[in-house]
Amino acid sequence: MISVDEARARIFAGLRPVAAEMLGLAQAHERVLARPVLARLSMPPADVSAMDGYAVRAADTQSGAVLRLIGEAPAGHPFSGRMGTGETVRIFTGSVIPDGADAVLIQENASASAQGVQVNEAVALALHIRRQGEDFAVGDEVISAGRRLSVRDIGVAGAAGHPWLCVYRKPRVAILCTGDEINLPGEPVPEGGIANSNAAMLAAFVNAHGGEALLLPIARDNVDAVAAGTQAARGADILVTTGGASVGAHDLVQAGLAQHGFALDFWKIAMRPGKPLIFGQVDGLPVLGLPGNPVSAYVCATLFLAGAIAVLGGLPPQAPKLMKARLGAPMKANDQREDYVRATLCDDGPGPIATPLRTQSSGMLRALAEARALIRRVPHAPALEAGDVVDILPLDLA
Amino acid sequence: MISVDEARARIFAGLRPVAAEMLGLAQAHERVLARPVLARLSMPPADVSAMDGYAVRAADTQSGAVLRLIGEAPAGHPFSGRMGTGETVRIFTGSVIPDGADAVLIQENASASAQGVQVNEAVALALHIRRQGEDFAVGDEVISAGRRLSVRDIGVAGAAGHPWLCVYRKPRVAILCTGDEINLPGEPVPEGGIANSNAAMLAAFVNAHGGEALLLPIARDNVDAVAAGTQAARGADILVTTGGASVGAHDLVQAGLAQHGFALDFWKIAMRPGKPLIFGQVDGLPVLGLPGNPVSAYVCATLFLAGAIAVLGGLPPQAPKLMKARLGAPMKANDQREDYVRATLCDDGPGPIATPLRTQSSGMLRALAEARALIRRVPHAPALEAGDVVDILPLDLA
Repeated sequence: MISVDEARARIFAGLRPVAAEMLGLAQAHERVLARPVLARLSMPPADVSAMDGYAVRAADTQSGAVLRLIGEAPAGHPFSGRMGTGETVRIFTGSVIPDGADAVLIQENASASAQGVQVNEAVALALHIRRQGEDFAVGDEVISAGRRLSVRDIGVAGAAGHPWLCVYRKPRVAILCTGDEINLPGEPVPEGGIANSNAAMLAAFVNAHGGEALLLPIARDNVDAVAAGTQAARGADILVTTGGASVGAHDLVQAGLAQHGFALDFWKIAMRPGKPLIFGQVDGLPVLGLPGNPVSAYVCATLFLAGAIAVLGGLPPQAPKLMKARLGAPMKANDQREDYVRATLCDDGPGPIATPLRTQSSGMLRALAEARALIRRVPHAPALEAGDVVDILPLDLA
Repeated sequence: MISVDEARARIFAGLRPVAAEMLGLAQAHERVLARPVLARLSMPPADVSAMDGYAVRAADTQSGAVLRLIGEAPAGHPFSGRMGTGETVRIFTGSVIPDGADAVLIQENASASAQGVQVNEAVALALHIRRQGEDFAVGDEVISAGRRLSVRDIGVAGAAGHPWLCVYRKPRVAILCTGDEINLPGEPVPEGGIANSNAAMLAAFVNAHGGEALLLPIARDNVDAVAAGTQAARGADILVTTGGASVGAHDLVQAGLAQHGFALDFWKIAMRPGKPLIFGQVDGLPVLGLPGNPVSAYVCATLFLAGAIAVLGGLPPQAPKLMKARLGAPMKANDQREDYVRATLCDDGPGPIATPLRTQSSGMLRALAEARALIRRVPHAPALEAGDVVDILPLDLA
């Protein structure tokens, strides 16, 4: 058995990013940028006004002075002339500052009349002017390659003049659920059988983490069915199986993969839930074998598959981001397996409080759905009191 | 001017949820459930084993006893006979417990040979048996209507036997950017013009928050263009405009809307950034007018549009969820406007630390992209020291 960290490192080492594609700006949100975005425009494009008011020469703005209004320059319509001494131009937020002006008198401090624009408060040099390129200038790298694009990044790329972005395409994740007892929801369930929760749950998981799920038909518990499923996964970027990952007469995933020349990396991790976890390659196709138990499958997906999709999708290898929380109840000392304890989470105060669910049975999927975090307990972690600090993995958005 | 909370309440009061649709299980992820999910199956479907091992009668399991192996019951293949005294059946995790058995001897505590299965450790009654319906039973409401479906909820619905879920459809959000100075990214930019960042940013925002963005052509600064854009938004569930929301000769959104009989609710909020914000209805179509400035537009979208999409999408009206953080630097007292201060966020410790960005100019979109939270400062909030607790709105995923 290997540790969680070693397993993750070995999985990540077996993955390469997918190729890039060009996407329209709005569609590129949440993708990972494959080429940096260099500004094609400056922002602001020229010295512009930060307020509605009047372009002035600061030296002209003694309180009480009356300036001659010689024109206006709405945003998008720069004033074409040059402003001389004692003159002013009506401008608006974002308007280009006319030649000859060096400050902005805000409209709240001016009185306009037929005689002109009276200054009610003197203006300092450069007041309310936003300088050309203050946010970014032509050629600046405004977004670096390797970044997952936020909504705001999409705005930045747009302001920098980019209608297209070069991003990693979505990794294709083939999902192969195995087992004689499982049936896709809505299909007839024979006695002793169950409706399969892993297929749709993992498809949703893959999509939520930026992949594209390919849901293969269920493979029954025989070597040929698993082998056929493996064949059907060709063209995907990773194959994820569920079930059949531990030893025993009815654990056939490894045997089915072996028909295609499976190179096993490891198949057992010192963790709970989810000890049996396969990783290896079939002819260049990475294969991640999750436990069949849905709670274990979900926790292992969170710890390993999310990161695998991220690496395939162009991000650097990274463990899930843990947060600190205080315990809402005591916990016993841990044994030799790294434990991921389902917990509620209260984050109303200045620092979250995580409380283990009463049931930690890995058969309780509905209880898992009510959990909001996993508490990570390293091997041989000592007993803890309520109030002690633990590492948690929030589950809200996963 | 009205407060942020009153504005939100008035917006929410003007919205009704969209209709529901049926979606395939995996596709329903992140949608809001319109009808509760009642279990069609029990989980477990019968009393099942929690471990690989042997079904036994606990009374037979004195240490050293040898039991007669009469069959096996892999998962999905229940044992059809009845187990008598001194007998045992090989079972696996998830196998149905055979008639006559009342406990499970785990394989680690048994020695199988030609003579039979030797018990190496006595077994307590009911040990390692998961009871029928322990997670949920037929008819149980396993997911309530009104809940946004997580990945785990998809698993629960699958295990409960549902291939389809009844969910609210995605609210259609028409986006109409206005202004003479803006040009969609990649289009030619005349002198004094800028590339429009709001269109794609808001489209991404809408999609990220569960809506479906409909990006209308840019409306130039004249009443007819805005009126035409309003007409084009018919069939959407809400119209979002940018720009032209404050008073002035070049603020034409209200005038354009008025051509279609706009009923204004309010148009000014005591907040920063983003004072000018329109809300009203055109013939039953809610209209939310955001400021043209991208930073203000983004902050207002976060405070008002995200919640509006949620309400349209079937969730109860709710303000954005604030968290507590400690300040990484002092802050001055606030004036009469509610302030949303762009900040960095450090969450490595037991409780996040928020530090205001040095620049709070609402023209700095790139700086906004580097922020990870907004610090909320209520009107007239007093000066604060580093270490004081503030309310923040994390921005990571928005």
